[in-house]
Amino acid sequence: MKRATRQNCPILRATNIVGDQWSLLILREFFLEGKRRFADLQAELGLSPNTLSARLKKLEDAGLLSRHVYTQHPPRAEYALTEKGRAFGPVMNALYDWGVEHTPDLSGD
Amino acid sequence: MKRATRQNCPILRATNIVGDQWSLLILREFFLEGKRRFADLQAELGLSPNTLSARLKKLEDAGLLSRHVYTQHPPRAEYALTEKGRAFGPVMNALYDWGVEHTPDLSGD
Repeated sequence: MKRATRQNCPILRATNIVGDQWSLLILREFFLEGKRRFADLQAELGLSPNTLSARLKKLEDAGLLSRHVYTQHPPRAEYALTEKGRAFGPVMNALYDWGVEHTPDLSGD
Repeated sequence: MKRATRQNCPILRATNIVGDQWSLLILREFFLEGKRRFADLQAELGLSPNTLSARLKKLEDAGLLSRHVYTQHPPRAEYALTEKGRAFGPVMNALYDWGVEHTPDLSGD
């Protein structure tokens, strides 16, 4: 990591987009499962529709997710990682590895 | 990244500790600068003392930062990365690399 003007630091710029737990957990779902529908994500993550909608829109606006609407009845929207989203994989892997090594198992087994 | 029970996923466990922008930006300061005092961090990041204090306590409780109090007048507390905190380096580097490649330069130059 290089020193950079703090107001233009790449870590600041990255965390402006993905610096919250829900965004990271939403992205995780795509790395695990591939394409996802709104209802899938809501069921898996258990967050409110408003929060999910806002986070998906932010990730879509930032170019990490693409949204495809199928014109059927009822219409169905499906989200997928873009190339920019897939490029976030190394961050997720590093976070996963750190979590394995340095956070307590919560399973209680 | 492997599939894991979502309630015990290492990414969930990691983001329970560092899944917010301030925690990531605070950790960034330690990777850039080494040991840091409260006043240094506040000046660099421009966040409120209450927020900074809460984030530092959380990172200290989670074992990423250690706090050393020098018994001088006035007393001075200095924070540093622990081994567990230093182990977070690969995440910071991956975030930095992604930010360089995939987020717009904000410098306006």
